[in-house]
Amino acid sequence: MISQTAEYALRAVVYLAMNPNSAFTTKQIAIATRVPPAYLSKVMQLLVKANIVRSQRGCGGGFCLVNEPVEICTLDVVNAVDPIQRIEHCPLGIESHGTVLCALHRKIDDATAILQRSFAETSIQDILSTPTKSIPLLESLK
Amino acid sequence: MISQTAEYALRAVVYLAMNPNSAFTTKQIAIATRVPPAYLSKVMQLLVKANIVRSQRGCGGGFCLVNEPVEICTLDVVNAVDPIQRIEHCPLGIESHGTVLCALHRKIDDATAILQRSFAETSIQDILSTPTKSIPLLESLK
Repeated sequence: MISQTAEYALRAVVYLAMNPNSAFTTKQIAIATRVPPAYLSKVMQLLVKANIVRSQRGCGGGFCLVNEPVEICTLDVVNAVDPIQRIEHCPLGIESHGTVLCALHRKIDDATAILQRSFAETSIQDILSTPTKSIPLLESLK
Repeated sequence: MISQTAEYALRAVVYLAMNPNSAFTTKQIAIATRVPPAYLSKVMQLLVKANIVRSQRGCGGGFCLVNEPVEICTLDVVNAVDPIQRIEHCPLGIESHGTVLCALHRKIDDATAILQRSFAETSIQDILSTPTKSIPLLESLK
């Protein structure tokens, strides 16, 4: 239920988090995350704008994380590229509803809130620390 | 976090549920739900295909619900037009991951599952029965 763009952003941030103290070019990240480079380039610019990633120029330059993985919540990454939209006013523009949502839009917004909370509660470090046979972005060891 | 298309489908089904024993043309539903008629027409065809709505021909014809609102869950309506996609295999195609998702995709899929459950547990009748000042699709009484 998150967009392709949001998923690509999470892959990129997870990759940078897995490789601290290094900077990577868009091409390197694109190969590791299996994201089309041109698409990834736009995603990286949005992550820079949101101050999640910074770009180092020059030899050995590239992208790296601004903060530690424990300080980056997955919601920040999603919201940097394709924000989760809550419903604050009647989407039909029914004047008398205003900010008092009807049951249909209350339902949709409540479901959105659950999703939002779920990402807010999970940091990039949580993703790295979860024990699993499948390591993000990497073939499993035989 | 559901698509515009899914929201439009829910509006249309809620409208038909609010007006039982009647059939409505696309134009009538479009006006009531404030959805562009051409867009709504495609949505209605998908709802017919999913057997949520049926089309009556002839004089007094139009769309009506196949089943009672209590028997229609909101997830069915969403899935009829823009299915909620669970992650069953590694989206990167990493062979050794297969169906064992890494922590990143496990997280995304778990969040999707929560959203899916939330819509599965709510029927169209639940929407109609929720006490609220704002009645779906209608201006509130003064």
